[in-house]
Amino acid sequence: MIDQHEAQAHAPVEENLRQVMDALARHKLVEELVHKQETSRPEMPRHALVEALVHKQNLVDLSKKLDGLHPADVAYILEALPLEDRLLVWDLVKAERDGEILLEVSDAVRESLIESMDNRELVAAAASLDTDEIADLAPDLPKDVVQELMKSLDQAKRAQVESSLSYDEDSVGALMDYDFVTIRSEVTLEVALRYLRMLGDLSSHTDKLFVVERDGRLVGVLPLKRLLIHDPDVHVAAVMSDAPVRFHPSDDASDAAQAFERYDLISAPVVDARERLVGRLTVDVMMDYIRAESEQDMLQAAGLREDEDLFTTVWKAAKNRWLWLGINLCTALFASRVVGAFEGSIEKLAALAALMPIVAGMGGNSGSQTLTLMVRGLALNLISKDNAKRLMVKEMGIALLNGLLWGGIMGLVTWGLYGSFPLALVMSAAMLLNLMVASMAGYFAPVIITRLGHDPAFGAHVLLTFITDSMGFLIFLGLATLLLL
Amino acid sequence: MIDQHEAQAHAPVEENLRQVMDALARHKLVEELVHKQETSRPEMPRHALVEALVHKQNLVDLSKKLDGLHPADVAYILEALPLEDRLLVWDLVKAERDGEILLEVSDAVRESLIESMDNRELVAAAASLDTDEIADLAPDLPKDVVQELMKSLDQAKRAQVESSLSYDEDSVGALMDYDFVTIRSEVTLEVALRYLRMLGDLSSHTDKLFVVERDGRLVGVLPLKRLLIHDPDVHVAAVMSDAPVRFHPSDDASDAAQAFERYDLISAPVVDARERLVGRLTVDVMMDYIRAESEQDMLQAAGLREDEDLFTTVWKAAKNRWLWLGINLCTALFASRVVGAFEGSIEKLAALAALMPIVAGMGGNSGSQTLTLMVRGLALNLISKDNAKRLMVKEMGIALLNGLLWGGIMGLVTWGLYGSFPLALVMSAAMLLNLMVASMAGYFAPVIITRLGHDPAFGAHVLLTFITDSMGFLIFLGLATLLLL
Repeated sequence: MIDQHEAQAHAPVEENLRQVMDALARHKLVEELVHKQETSRPEMPRHALVEALVHKQNLVDLSKKLDGLHPADVAYILEALPLEDRLLVWDLVKAERDGEILLEVSDAVRESLIESMDNRELVAAAASLDTDEIADLAPDLPKDVVQELMKSLDQAKRAQVESSLSYDEDSVGALMDYDFVTIRSEVTLEVALRYLRMLGDLSSHTDKLFVVERDGRLVGVLPLKRLLIHDPDVHVAAVMSDAPVRFHPSDDASDAAQAFERYDLISAPVVDARERLVGRLTVDVMMDYIRAESEQDMLQAAGLREDEDLFTTVWKAAKNRWLWLGINLCTALFASRVVGAFEGSIEKLAALAALMPIVAGMGGNSGSQTLTLMVRGLALNLISKDNAKRLMVKEMGIALLNGLLWGGIMGLVTWGLYGSFPLALVMSAAMLLNLMVASMAGYFAPVIITRLGHDPAFGAHVLLTFITDSMGFLIFLGLATLLLL
Repeated sequence: MIDQHEAQAHAPVEENLRQVMDALARHKLVEELVHKQETSRPEMPRHALVEALVHKQNLVDLSKKLDGLHPADVAYILEALPLEDRLLVWDLVKAERDGEILLEVSDAVRESLIESMDNRELVAAAASLDTDEIADLAPDLPKDVVQELMKSLDQAKRAQVESSLSYDEDSVGALMDYDFVTIRSEVTLEVALRYLRMLGDLSSHTDKLFVVERDGRLVGVLPLKRLLIHDPDVHVAAVMSDAPVRFHPSDDASDAAQAFERYDLISAPVVDARERLVGRLTVDVMMDYIRAESEQDMLQAAGLREDEDLFTTVWKAAKNRWLWLGINLCTALFASRVVGAFEGSIEKLAALAALMPIVAGMGGNSGSQTLTLMVRGLALNLISKDNAKRLMVKEMGIALLNGLLWGGIMGLVTWGLYGSFPLALVMSAAMLLNLMVASMAGYFAPVIITRLGHDPAFGAHVLLTFITDSMGFLIFLGLATLLLL
């Protein structure tokens, strides 16, 4: 599908965007001129006509420019444009390319484009896609469009779409496609070569043929490489790999992505419980999945529930951010009540109020270092029962060392600033203790969040800050109240 | 190189790790028994002999198990083992596989393995690799090993290693390999097919042949797909792509990685300024690069300067984390001095001390949402001069909305807690103002850090927290001092 655009030169994408923006600016300028003329000088229709023609030519040029671009490049331009310009450009894109471009844009932009299309356009756009791509798009389409679309497909394709939709979105089944070529093990390479020529086309990312029995059972894979370098008289069975890396539709997509990275795969067969071939995974899809996952982690870590289109409405964006701000307000309120319990001490010694954020903040910083290593170790499956204890001991050791160092430094600074040795001692002790607490919290927070069935990217940091703030205030103000007042 | 292990079944990697750990545990148990015997019952040499044999058999089994694993799987096991066990397993790995496994492990683990090897072993390990892989490994090897290694290479290969080493590590030149197959455009596909059979092997990720002129100039690429489906009598020139996506050695590696994602590439030619073919990029290398980049961002965001081996020494790990903790201590001290300037006010109204962390914290949280979207937009090149202003207006709008909402809520909470309407009003106003400040800081921090030539992953968050904390305290305590006291 993407092949017709493969031939283009590697023009920097930003350059394309600039050209489109220039064309849009010209377009708007002309539009303004025309508008001025219509309102202020209706007596000059001739001039207006010329302008209108220039105006139209401008859009025709822009449309041609867009036709020459790879769908992913058009998607990039759509992402970078504000809503109004985006819809103008979208209208200029040839209808038969709508489907593939919708697949390339982010969820937020996709939503804005779909909103601007009527049902007929949507059905036409989706109908041009492969079945696995239709399944990718379907959740974002209006229900009646999906129904109409399903009716337009033949039974085999409808079954594929339904099968793709039936899998969890983070499973191999939801990511696999159906564009594989199968051959039998008892034919010769010559026959295989002739068969491929007869097919006349190979889907992208076909680096191997899948060798199956008559009942659909996968018995091996034949890399194209081997097909090319071996004597055509040899049988497939003699040169195929008979135990290739393969996946099941219910496998976790991130595990599959890690396997693709680990074994440098380009494509791999997906088989059911009875080893019958049901689909294919390809590296481009896995790469997109990895990118999407890491972006989602990044967004979630800042409490952005979904991807925000850069130009989404203020209202929509604000709602997207509320849950997290609300949770953080609750934890901040809790920490505030801890401080509130020591208001008597603070009235007597206001220096405590100035110093307490340092104890809390350094705990948070140090804890987040532990937490980051834990999250990474958990994601890479590097942390097992056997080494978990060792790891905790190591992190506690680092916290002890850092607590002595930074606690010591802050003790000296406190002594210098306030001239009180007991206050300096309390500061040092509180820093040391809170760094120890922070390393425990950084160690356990991701484990707890994972046990609760959540992604550690979302909640672990909030939990950590909650603990280091509350405990930091409690330890410092508590020690000060006990020892100084 | 990896092909001989391609045939293995897809055994879960954790299962392999468990088996190795079991074998190590058995090994240690036997070792302990032998040791006990030697010390306590020297009169029983026969029993000791039996134990020693069992002991040896255990290691032989483990070694066999390791031989059957893909290098990436061995690397995973090495990552998950504490140093002592890691070196024991490393000794059991066949020497000829050392090189490819060293390529797969993380920097921290690679360092620990290289430290355990002598020069002769290191030269032998590196000599088994391709030239681009030698260049990857070279920076981690002792200087005399690299010198010896270079002497052992023939001139062409030495030139390739030197060329790879001459490029910046984040450039295409440092990531490209030299394993491409070239053909001439005037031959027929039949000739090309015969040529491939004659070569007898194709390097992994060869999905296209590079079509060059006699002077080495790239004139096109011939996807294997087209070679397979077209009539063998056709000429290469007739079916090749004549303007393929191609890169220059000095191109930025992340741009190239984005192009691989965008255009779903498997391999792509690298050409010099005169369009002469100098190398090849492959998707597996780009995927590793993307993964490494996103991991580095994650680690840097928590102030971890380099990847920490999970079992590194406390001392080494602590040093790795100090720079960031030191910077954070300085910013926390500054914020503390801001509070210190208002100690008089706090003495009079200790409630201020309890409420001020909420103003600062909510600013930080809200600002980090803006910052995250900015960092993402900058990384994807989605932010240009034309849309930057719009984006800022949007973020300010969200801050205004959130400020009114959360400031309002906190005003009510403050009123309820402290029964003071003026205090509630100050709280609301301070929250609103600090959220506005935070959105500006979140917007400008990554831009400033990028302008200074740093990666926004490292410093932007520290700068943001610095601003939201200091300004939060200043605004809240300042307003309270002006209006309440």
